[in-house]
Amino acid sequence: MKVLFLNGPNLNLLGTREPGVYGRSTLAAIEARVRRRAGELGIAVEWRQSNLEGELVTWIQQAAGAFDFLVLNAAAYTHTSVALRDAIAAAGVPTLEVHLSNVHAREEFRHRSLIAAVCRGVIAGFGSTSYLLALEAVNALATEAASSA
Amino acid sequence: MKVLFLNGPNLNLLGTREPGVYGRSTLAAIEARVRRRAGELGIAVEWRQSNLEGELVTWIQQAAGAFDFLVLNAAAYTHTSVALRDAIAAAGVPTLEVHLSNVHAREEFRHRSLIAAVCRGVIAGFGSTSYLLALEAVNALATEAASSA
Amino acid sequence: MKVLFLNGPNLNLLGTREPGVYGRSTLAAIEARVRRRAGELGIAVEWRQSNLEGELVTWIQQAAGAFDFLVLNAAAYTHTSVALRDAIAAAGVPTLEVHLSNVHAREEFRHRSLIAAVCRGVIAGFGSTSYLLALEAVNALATEAASSA
Amino acid sequence: MKVLFLNGPNLNLLGTREPGVYGRSTLAAIEARVRRRAGELGIAVEWRQSNLEGELVTWIQQAAGAFDFLVLNAAAYTHTSVALRDAIAAAGVPTLEVHLSNVHAREEFRHRSLIAAVCRGVIAGFGSTSYLLALEAVNALATEAASSA
Amino acid sequence: MKVLFLNGPNLNLLGTREPGVYGRSTLAAIEARVRRRAGELGIAVEWRQSNLEGELVTWIQQAAGAFDFLVLNAAAYTHTSVALRDAIAAAGVPTLEVHLSNVHAREEFRHRSLIAAVCRGVIAGFGSTSYLLALEAVNALATEAASSA
Amino acid sequence: MKVLFLNGPNLNLLGTREPGVYGRSTLAAIEARVRRRAGELGIAVEWRQSNLEGELVTWIQQAAGAFDFLVLNAAAYTHTSVALRDAIAAAGVPTLEVHLSNVHAREEFRHRSLIAAVCRGVIAGFGSTSYLLALEAVNALATEAASSA
Amino acid sequence: MKVLFLNGPNLNLLGTREPGVYGRSTLAAIEARVRRRAGELGIAVEWRQSNLEGELVTWIQQAAGAFDFLVLNAAAYTHTSVALRDAIAAAGVPTLEVHLSNVHAREEFRHRSLIAAVCRGVIAGFGSTSYLLALEAVNALATEAASSA
Amino acid sequence: MKVLFLNGPNLNLLGTREPGVYGRSTLAAIEARVRRRAGELGIAVEWRQSNLEGELVTWIQQAAGAFDFLVLNAAAYTHTSVALRDAIAAAGVPTLEVHLSNVHAREEFRHRSLIAAVCRGVIAGFGSTSYLLALEAVNALATEAASSA
Amino acid sequence: MKVLFLNGPNLNLLGTREPGVYGRSTLAAIEARVRRRAGELGIAVEWRQSNLEGELVTWIQQAAGAFDFLVLNAAAYTHTSVALRDAIAAAGVPTLEVHLSNVHAREEFRHRSLIAAVCRGVIAGFGSTSYLLALEAVNALATEAASSA
Amino acid sequence: MKVLFLNGPNLNLLGTREPGVYGRSTLAAIEARVRRRAGELGIAVEWRQSNLEGELVTWIQQAAGAFDFLVLNAAAYTHTSVALRDAIAAAGVPTLEVHLSNVHAREEFRHRSLIAAVCRGVIAGFGSTSYLLALEAVNALATEAASSA
Amino acid sequence: MKVLFLNGPNLNLLGTREPGVYGRSTLAAIEARVRRRAGELGIAVEWRQSNLEGELVTWIQQAAGAFDFLVLNAAAYTHTSVALRDAIAAAGVPTLEVHLSNVHAREEFRHRSLIAAVCRGVIAGFGSTSYLLALEAVNALATEAASSA
Amino acid sequence: MKVLFLNGPNLNLLGTREPGVYGRSTLAAIEARVRRRAGELGIAVEWRQSNLEGELVTWIQQAAGAFDFLVLNAAAYTHTSVALRDAIAAAGVPTLEVHLSNVHAREEFRHRSLIAAVCRGVIAGFGSTSYLLALEAVNALATEAASSA
Repeated sequence: MKVLFLNGPNLNLLGTREPGVYGRSTLAAIEARVRRRAGELGIAVEWRQSNLEGELVTWIQQAAGAFDFLVLNAAAYTHTSVALRDAIAAAGVPTLEVHLSNVHAREEFRHRSLIAAVCRGVIAGFGSTSYLLALEAVNALATEAASSA
Repeated sequence: MKVLFLNGPNLNLLGTREPGVYGRSTLAAIEARVRRRAGELGIAVEWRQSNLEGELVTWIQQAAGAFDFLVLNAAAYTHTSVALRDAIAAAGVPTLEVHLSNVHAREEFRHRSLIAAVCRGVIAGFGSTSYLLALEAVNALATEAASSA
Repeated sequence: MKVLFLNGPNLNLLGTREPGVYGRSTLAAIEARVRRRAGELGIAVEWRQSNLEGELVTWIQQAAGAFDFLVLNAAAYTHTSVALRDAIAAAGVPTLEVHLSNVHAREEFRHRSLIAAVCRGVIAGFGSTSYLLALEAVNALATEAASSA
Repeated sequence: MKVLFLNGPNLNLLGTREPGVYGRSTLAAIEARVRRRAGELGIAVEWRQSNLEGELVTWIQQAAGAFDFLVLNAAAYTHTSVALRDAIAAAGVPTLEVHLSNVHAREEFRHRSLIAAVCRGVIAGFGSTSYLLALEAVNALATEAASSA
Repeated sequence: MKVLFLNGPNLNLLGTREPGVYGRSTLAAIEARVRRRAGELGIAVEWRQSNLEGELVTWIQQAAGAFDFLVLNAAAYTHTSVALRDAIAAAGVPTLEVHLSNVHAREEFRHRSLIAAVCRGVIAGFGSTSYLLALEAVNALATEAASSA
Repeated sequence: MKVLFLNGPNLNLLGTREPGVYGRSTLAAIEARVRRRAGELGIAVEWRQSNLEGELVTWIQQAAGAFDFLVLNAAAYTHTSVALRDAIAAAGVPTLEVHLSNVHAREEFRHRSLIAAVCRGVIAGFGSTSYLLALEAVNALATEAASSA
Repeated sequence: MKVLFLNGPNLNLLGTREPGVYGRSTLAAIEARVRRRAGELGIAVEWRQSNLEGELVTWIQQAAGAFDFLVLNAAAYTHTSVALRDAIAAAGVPTLEVHLSNVHAREEFRHRSLIAAVCRGVIAGFGSTSYLLALEAVNALATEAASSA
Repeated sequence: MKVLFLNGPNLNLLGTREPGVYGRSTLAAIEARVRRRAGELGIAVEWRQSNLEGELVTWIQQAAGAFDFLVLNAAAYTHTSVALRDAIAAAGVPTLEVHLSNVHAREEFRHRSLIAAVCRGVIAGFGSTSYLLALEAVNALATEAASSA
Repeated sequence: MKVLFLNGPNLNLLGTREPGVYGRSTLAAIEARVRRRAGELGIAVEWRQSNLEGELVTWIQQAAGAFDFLVLNAAAYTHTSVALRDAIAAAGVPTLEVHLSNVHAREEFRHRSLIAAVCRGVIAGFGSTSYLLALEAVNALATEAASSA
Repeated sequence: MKVLFLNGPNLNLLGTREPGVYGRSTLAAIEARVRRRAGELGIAVEWRQSNLEGELVTWIQQAAGAFDFLVLNAAAYTHTSVALRDAIAAAGVPTLEVHLSNVHAREEFRHRSLIAAVCRGVIAGFGSTSYLLALEAVNALATEAASSA
Repeated sequence: MKVLFLNGPNLNLLGTREPGVYGRSTLAAIEARVRRRAGELGIAVEWRQSNLEGELVTWIQQAAGAFDFLVLNAAAYTHTSVALRDAIAAAGVPTLEVHLSNVHAREEFRHRSLIAAVCRGVIAGFGSTSYLLALEAVNALATEAASSA
Repeated sequence: MKVLFLNGPNLNLLGTREPGVYGRSTLAAIEARVRRRAGELGIAVEWRQSNLEGELVTWIQQAAGAFDFLVLNAAAYTHTSVALRDAIAAAGVPTLEVHLSNVHAREEFRHRSLIAAVCRGVIAGFGSTSYLLALEAVNALATEAASSA
């Protein structure tokens, strides 16, 4: 099973800035943690980050046929991007929305997600653990699908 | 470590009604699945369900000092109860909000959670797996706390 | 045919308070009037009242399999309860929403019903006659169903 | 007793179009059903339909002094017409609002009725039976008025 | 100088209904009062009433070239008709909006006028005197225009 | 009969600034025009202007018992002053709201009047003629009151 | 193939009024231009205009079975008429919404179309050419339907 | 004179949790303070707390005829309960709304009270002193009523 | 201890106007009642009224250092004045908001207080007794502060 | 004459995904169809697609002086991009907004176009035919301009 | 060149209160800093402060003809005063809006400026330096005007 | 001291397009003017422009540690980009928001800035002088910081 992890704008700064909000792990450290657990589960992981909305759109499109699941932390674009929503709907790859912080405990404009409605589910507020939980979720969803096949 | 799982109104009907929205597992089956994994992790689980907002408030209050974490599927009360929000804030037990369905893909009034802002995080959309992920999250949060102590 | 009549908060005060808004009949008098007509129609009637949202939720759940129709005057909870809505949807018993007063001629917040969307229909504004009309409606719906079977 | 039944725009198409929403009865069939029951109750029925808002206004005005009750299915004009509301208030004939479909289970803009506040009550969602229930309601209201006179 | 007075829906009932809101004068009595004063001022008056939005639209269109001023009491259509607004803008005849009652002291939905923005001015709240004031206003506007020519 | 004309903020600049919006007459010229007509009608006129909301409030209060009518052009305070509204309601002197410009054809925030609901009526959009019409309205209202006494 | 072109309120004034907004062509000139092109395409054209909402409703109803397509410029009623929307949905004739002006570049209240959701598509902003484009669209839709049959 | 003090959800936790918001007094300490002062004033006090909305509704109903005044701290239900509002209106016992904290200085959703409109007055923000002030208010209201009798 | 009582616009009319809303006491009578009780409590009282928003601002500023508490009935300015809010925040004198009437039972625009968020608490709806309760509140707050010092 | 066709995010997936919403034609097939018809009309066509908002902005800017018309399907960016709006206004090339689907029949957030107000017109809902109609519109606009020159 | 600096309500308290929000400079210190720089630039400065909205209105009016520029820190009135807006528009003196704090980083109601739309520009958030920047802006605007003359 | 000037979408067109809104200076001319003044102040200037939201995000991130201040004219992205806001908050470099035009005097959607709340201050409406004022502001802020160190 192959999973694409996509990280949106400003996540490349993780761990160095605003640890009170986003935690102390760097994005590389989270990636390492995810890869370690993915290895145990026999899941192949692809890991990318971009500050460009359009590049994220393109990567989501390319996931069709190439990946079984998509784990997407769209960061700021979560709240403003119809393009990401359309890409997820068009690509047809089951997508999980993740967030490091609990977006519902922050500014009003972060309470609205434009992409949640086309995702399978949402995991938010557990810091880097949110990614690990997404990996477990992917594993469970795949197992379910296999057993019901 | 002790974890209290609280289930709100109508969750006692799980598995028998509207499987298209909520899945085919009964609440008892979910409980069994949770207890099995909790056993592996050495976590003691208490499991309750109520249709009464005020009873849920009382149980949350009583969790203070008695439980390390609270996993709460407030169901319909998620969207209408300030009392649950105040109870969570007052009890001071770290609380995780879970949902079986992806509430963001349903009616507009289900997009607003009155309790999310006082919870640690939110997991929604993975059916009974949402509860398992909450258990993993609790385990990770406890481990983090222990290692940073 | 069996019909469950459920009455929400404050309806136990009927006839003694605010007759200008709700009429002079007591709830017991309405029940008697309903039972009389139900007897003529050969319909078995169960009649309950509760001030507790969660108790109403439970009764709606228990109606599944036990009653053919539900006549619900949710009173104040009409405008605030997602839990009742979910219970109606989950129980799957055809439900009629009734009101003594014409809620649309009263305060703005009474114009919104959270449960109407999951009910078969709405009857409002005819005092105790609203209940009688609901009984006639139930009778007609049952006859239609029988004739189309 | 004389009752005027007024039917608004597009109701002349009943039974031939969108039976999923409005049922299979034609307007003529509903009229026949109403007249049959009215005959039993000794009620004289006048029955009209118009696609013109202004013609409906005129008919409501003319009902003053000529009819004891008005049963109005204003259809689309329910949601947009202040003129109908003013006509009802000015004519002073007790008016019942009826709908074939449960308007609260349809588009958002159908949840607002501009005329409900000046009507005696509302019956919605029972197909052609809504008209029959209105007839029963009229009968009950007249009986009440007579007995309290 | 020729002035067209147009009266919208339900104004034909004036004086017989709801005198508390609209006063005791009939529309004919107001017309007589207006004609008397118009005679003194040497103004030719045309006077019409319709319950049909579209007929009012047509009359406004026909006023172009035939009348110097239009005095319009659009009644209920004031708050709902874009068609009247477009007719006034298209006809190009200077139009005065009048109301018998003070619409701003009534229901919220009567506070918005869709036609005021394309009228010269508004006179509201003086009962039948509103029409007389409109006549004086027309006279003054015509005198101003003449003196500045 | 005694009438108090009150003019709100910036009306002292009339005629020298923004003639496109407010016309070319100075406030003194309007006063002269009003006094001339008032003389013909046997009406005593008091004329004041203030840029201070509180001073206008005080003048309205003092009108009680001293004046039969109040003609108020509250200008900008029309849209922001609850204090003026309360003063009018408290003083109990019948008040007419006037405006030089057609406020409904200007910015959105000028469409709301906080004082209209406690005034007898509104005259807007006729330049200095608005004041003359208010004088005629006062005369008519007084005549009506006298004849109905 | 037969196409019904329906024109709403005030379109009969086209070409003589407000050419800056609606262009210089009269409605007759547009009709002629449409008929010429329709002749080339072998399409039979029926052409009507009404200022009455209810008459437009009736014509739309009558189109069922009689016409293959409906091209509707509802003008002002676009923004206020639920009755037209219901008529289009009930008649079941594929309908194209056209506008001479670009409604989205005008007043806020013209940005909302109550009928667009039940139309096949929308063409707005090209003056009389909007109608010609609608004709081409109809031709293309018919060709597609034929080729996919 | 008899006064019923009702305390809503989470007030049983007072003094032990969030003292920054609600103060350090326990509910028992407040009760003692109230009883002491009530003793001086010759007022009989009944004191209750519930987390159940429906139980509070029932207690308010039962106050009719049994108590002269009701002092209600509805806590979270202040902002969400139409049932409490209806109970107060139905019971007809003069009711005072009290709050420990200044709800207007907290989250937006705490600024709206659904019950204030049916209460005699509101006292908020003085910690346990809010209850004492309510007692003084009750005493003053009773004295006024007696002296005006 | 010194307390400044500030009264906003139109409160100088108290007792003579609208007794149904504001009660029959004059402002002087309320002042006398307050001074009598203040004398008993050993509190020095300063009492002022102004219709001018800016004068109230100045008085609040001057209270800094000169008074221990401020009791403010801002009347109409409660709902419109950011300047008063800023003055209270800047002066730093603990301020109590009082109202004679229950503002929450009146017009919608009176439900919003711009100053409550920077006040210690709010007392509304008890007529002149509201001021007495504020005095008791001040006394209690001072006692608390002294005992905790 | 030269026309630039710009296609926004996800349009590169056309024909392979969600044919129910967007039709079965690939973007290349649409381009071929447009080029064929453009050839007949003697119009030079440039055709581009990008998922990047900023790249679309740049292309619009570069169209100034290089192209006579712009046909823009901004897809998701239609609803979120002020940058595209500013680019169109700044470039000054007449722009036509096109959509494959009828955006008004889809989610609420697709009903608002941020760019329509600076475009010449809008064509939506005809699948790939929308592009062909835009080409005809361009041709007509150019012919008009030439004939009026 | 002559510049009038106007300071609104509570700015007289600067430097002594809430330095965290408004900085530590007194208004006199800011004036001195402005006069020093103005001296270097050869600009005559007039400096005033008032807590009265109406007095600020009067001063703005008087600036016409007497001053070349107006620098206005309207403080709280920025968000509530239509009267100031009208005064600026009527006086016709180019006006710069300044604020000490960054109003956009504070409460929601401070994000709306009623006067910005009639000002040349806005400078906010730089403490007393905001005033100095306004002086530089005035100097630049005057130089531009001179050079383009 | 080093300052990074970032310019958002469409600013590369400055001076050639819409001079009525944005002035006649090209971006290069503004840069030259800024560099000249920066040279006098001993400030090193970096100057960039991009139409890509994501590229601006990246540049803001890279400013951390490399620049002392950021002057940002985000143009259209000011109103739609949460990503820029997050980048500014994450980078931690003090940022000044500048605009050529007075955004508050333009379309409603330009009145909201998503980035202002995380900036030090805002300067808008002075054409190219806005940039020069930002430079002076930066110089003053740095001087203040140095003197308070």
